[in-house]
Amino acid sequence: MPFTPPVAEQRLVLDTIVGLPDLAASDRFAAADGDTVDAVLEGVGQFAAGEWAPLARIGDTVGAQWTADGVVMPDGYAAAYRAYVEGGWGTIGAPADWGGQGLPFALQTAVLETLGTANMGFALCPTLTIGAIEALQHHGSPEQQAAYLPHLSTGEWTGTMNLTEPQAGSDVGALRATATPRGDGTWSIKGTKIFISFGDHDMAPNIVHLVLARTPDAPVGTRGISLFLVPKYRLDADGRPGALNDVRVVSIEHKMGLHASPTCVLSFGDHDDCVGELIGPEHGGMRAMFTMMNNARLNVGLQGVQVAEGATQAAVAYALDRVQSARAGGADRSSVRIVEHPDVRRMLLRMKAQTQAARALVYYAAGQVDRAALGDAAAKARLEMVTPLAKAHATDLGNEVASLGIQVHGGMGYVEETGAAQFFRDARITPIYEGTNGIQAADLVGRKLGLDNGGAFAALIEDLRREAEAEDLVALVAACDAVGRRLATADADDRLAASYPFLTMLSVALCGVLLERESRALTGEGDFESMKRASIRFYLEQIVPEALGLRAAATAPATTLYALPAAAFAA
Amino acid sequence: MPFTPPVAEQRLVLDTIVGLPDLAASDRFAAADGDTVDAVLEGVGQFAAGEWAPLARIGDTVGAQWTADGVVMPDGYAAAYRAYVEGGWGTIGAPADWGGQGLPFALQTAVLETLGTANMGFALCPTLTIGAIEALQHHGSPEQQAAYLPHLSTGEWTGTMNLTEPQAGSDVGALRATATPRGDGTWSIKGTKIFISFGDHDMAPNIVHLVLARTPDAPVGTRGISLFLVPKYRLDADGRPGALNDVRVVSIEHKMGLHASPTCVLSFGDHDDCVGELIGPEHGGMRAMFTMMNNARLNVGLQGVQVAEGATQAAVAYALDRVQSARAGGADRSSVRIVEHPDVRRMLLRMKAQTQAARALVYYAAGQVDRAALGDAAAKARLEMVTPLAKAHATDLGNEVASLGIQVHGGMGYVEETGAAQFFRDARITPIYEGTNGIQAADLVGRKLGLDNGGAFAALIEDLRREAEAEDLVALVAACDAVGRRLATADADDRLAASYPFLTMLSVALCGVLLERESRALTGEGDFESMKRASIRFYLEQIVPEALGLRAAATAPATTLYALPAAAFAA
Repeated sequence: MPFTPPVAEQRLVLDTIVGLPDLAASDRFAAADGDTVDAVLEGVGQFAAGEWAPLARIGDTVGAQWTADGVVMPDGYAAAYRAYVEGGWGTIGAPADWGGQGLPFALQTAVLETLGTANMGFALCPTLTIGAIEALQHHGSPEQQAAYLPHLSTGEWTGTMNLTEPQAGSDVGALRATATPRGDGTWSIKGTKIFISFGDHDMAPNIVHLVLARTPDAPVGTRGISLFLVPKYRLDADGRPGALNDVRVVSIEHKMGLHASPTCVLSFGDHDDCVGELIGPEHGGMRAMFTMMNNARLNVGLQGVQVAEGATQAAVAYALDRVQSARAGGADRSSVRIVEHPDVRRMLLRMKAQTQAARALVYYAAGQVDRAALGDAAAKARLEMVTPLAKAHATDLGNEVASLGIQVHGGMGYVEETGAAQFFRDARITPIYEGTNGIQAADLVGRKLGLDNGGAFAALIEDLRREAEAEDLVALVAACDAVGRRLATADADDRLAASYPFLTMLSVALCGVLLERESRALTGEGDFESMKRASIRFYLEQIVPEALGLRAAATAPATTLYALPAAAFAA
Repeated sequence: MPFTPPVAEQRLVLDTIVGLPDLAASDRFAAADGDTVDAVLEGVGQFAAGEWAPLARIGDTVGAQWTADGVVMPDGYAAAYRAYVEGGWGTIGAPADWGGQGLPFALQTAVLETLGTANMGFALCPTLTIGAIEALQHHGSPEQQAAYLPHLSTGEWTGTMNLTEPQAGSDVGALRATATPRGDGTWSIKGTKIFISFGDHDMAPNIVHLVLARTPDAPVGTRGISLFLVPKYRLDADGRPGALNDVRVVSIEHKMGLHASPTCVLSFGDHDDCVGELIGPEHGGMRAMFTMMNNARLNVGLQGVQVAEGATQAAVAYALDRVQSARAGGADRSSVRIVEHPDVRRMLLRMKAQTQAARALVYYAAGQVDRAALGDAAAKARLEMVTPLAKAHATDLGNEVASLGIQVHGGMGYVEETGAAQFFRDARITPIYEGTNGIQAADLVGRKLGLDNGGAFAALIEDLRREAEAEDLVALVAACDAVGRRLATADADDRLAASYPFLTMLSVALCGVLLERESRALTGEGDFESMKRASIRFYLEQIVPEALGLRAAATAPATTLYALPAAAFAA
């Protein structure tokens, strides 16, 4: 699938939504000046289009393969990964103290968007490495940081997150993997983890597994979980990958999509010889995991942007090429490109609008990460509020857009050769992993509405109210305010019953405000500006009113849901 | 995937929505008494669950295969198809004059629903045969009927529809296949057709291709198209399949789903020896094709019901089994089955409600087919009005429900082994083929709103207004009325720009009214009744208000869509 990096759009969003110029005014992010940002966006765009996009198809058709010697990536992936490391693309947001460039998280977001639009499954590998870096950066000992961060910061080694077990999915506290002291300060890890993305591969000389496990006599539930670092190869005296650790890939899943990403079942300690190191304090695993999980959630939201952008580009290209039927109602009966038909335009403009909405939402959240890193407490609260929105709504939009992308292609969209179907299949995991979107909605109404006694929510609403201009958008913000305040004091069932539609309403309100802000920043009259104006207008005219239609669902009590016994669902 | 035929629901819908008892009061449908209906529903349910459902997975994983000798179906399909023919399931709605049972189309709809829920790809084969029967029944000569209908009515021979060519998809009039007189009353057919479902297979001794082609000097566009019957094997003097005709399967498509259904590229007349017969008058092809296409559209809408029912059953079974996390807000901290969590219930109840809505809609339309066959002109007008709704909205719902089904399964939904992904992949073709849903929306606003000078639309609205009870539903009907009347006189661009959201609004209004009617007919207090009451309440509380949120989109002018030049979509 040919791919054009959306550099003008990324730059606009970084400037107006992230406020990158403000960030660059700080000492910490001084390197993120306009020229650097342009160079990074152009550079990664060229790299991704040239090196990664051409591998998207083989990633799907051949995919990562499990063999007795571990996971083998499709032809070309190892070399393309090496090119990514050598190009320095892994270092963008990595800590400057450890070989990274220390650029803003929001700029790293743009880089990762481009890589993932070119090849979503492949880009999941760096995404996980970023999570491992963050966990070590915030919770690792100086020795652990020194041993691992230089290799992770460049992407030379890759990272994984090991939470899920067959009986412990959304309920992480139910996990059973164990860690027993070996007497030398290290731990012996034992257990089986499932759904481990890039749990094994042949692209890097080492893989750093971050593993949640229970120490002896640990309290039940999440309070008894600790985080361990388990390298695929133990480090030798010189800190280089040495002996193979006792971690084995038992199998990989046969998934509907994302075939370039091996989803592994990992078995730790089959021979009682899996050595791990404790990261942070014993029983502090959930806290450490949340550090990496929060930003990982934003990066999964970003996958929604990636797939939306890719699917949109493919559909636009098809619609600009495919000729079919004359324009209805016109005098000219010659066939036109389907982009000229109103309902095709509606689909395309919706795809453009929703892609831009998803991007604005995720970049907005990413910008709060950077502001929070500069000590801005309000930004930290905003980040907490909007993380579930960015994860859930952006991935929902990725799926909607990918589906529209198939529809624009007509019958050809259902045939695998066009690639439209791959976007659709790849996208479908994103509302599930890294906390299902239902879990995100529960987090929003269960924890985030109550933050600071409702102060964080009130502040977000105030932000929205201050900026919203369009009449329906003003009404939507007011509806979100009323619904949110009502849910904050509702009982648990009512709150959760309404959580998902409320999350969608609030997300659309925020996206609407951010898109209006982008619109105000447009000055030129070129194709880019006319496209932006039209798609933002579409968003305000159609998508914002749709969200108002969710108000009933967001205020419906749980009684309807419990008006039938569980068994009656099977009736 | 184990599968329980939804017999109680089907019977309720046949009684209250179709009004089967009324139909059975006519001479023509006297055989459709209550006992017969029960026997058919139970019988096909048992057959489909026992013989067809077990083949759904191999249909997906192995699929139909193209070989040099033609298409080979997966193991077990030929025998299961034979069992279908021998069980008489093909004869339900087939004409009594030609070996069929002549039962109502609506009852055949229920039979086809059950077969397709068990195995959607497989059930497409009988669906196409039904279309061929209808074309011959209404447009074939007595000789043609005598030669083919007895074999099609039992399902012994199968049928296909050959419209699409690479340059002629939605624009059927652009087709180029030719038919030249052979001088003996038959025609020599030449051309390539694509996307021909069950264009070849090894389950039946003959395949009857209905092919659109142009005769010499035919007018351009759809007015110059004629319909031809092209058997795979020409009939010998005794009317038995004899010499192989000059029709060749060039390849089959590699599709995202529906792998049990071979989607063929057929080449007619490579050796100038493809013999066809004209069906109906020369240049009358579109009219004949519409005969079969209209009911085929209902049958594709029915596929939305099939996949929704299957996905719902799978999700319910999973949610009743999977234990994860304690119920929020409760004192009891032990883990519960996920069906107990509010947001999972919301998803399941939505799936139930939308499945029932789709079924009500499609069966309602099917009932109009039967009433029209009894000479009810109002029913014929109703059928024309609601055919695009039944095709488009029911398939949209099938896709929505299949996606929710994956979500309920969490990570396991993305793994192919659970089957949730297959429903999702299979479903995605249904909004595309048999006229894309965009084409359906165009048909609604372009042709159907204007039928009888708006009388057909006014009559439908009057039907809805008479029955609607819930406040939001009354409002939705009023909104549909206002929007529809406005669109009827709008210019082509504005009408088409608004067509899709209008189609959805009107569909929801109709479904809401039909579900309310079902609700009024419920008398018992068992699991089935409590499930129905809860899902209908959910529909009225949540889905009807969402449709009200589409009003803005359904009244938005086309100007936004054309506020950018086509090329700017790529910006």
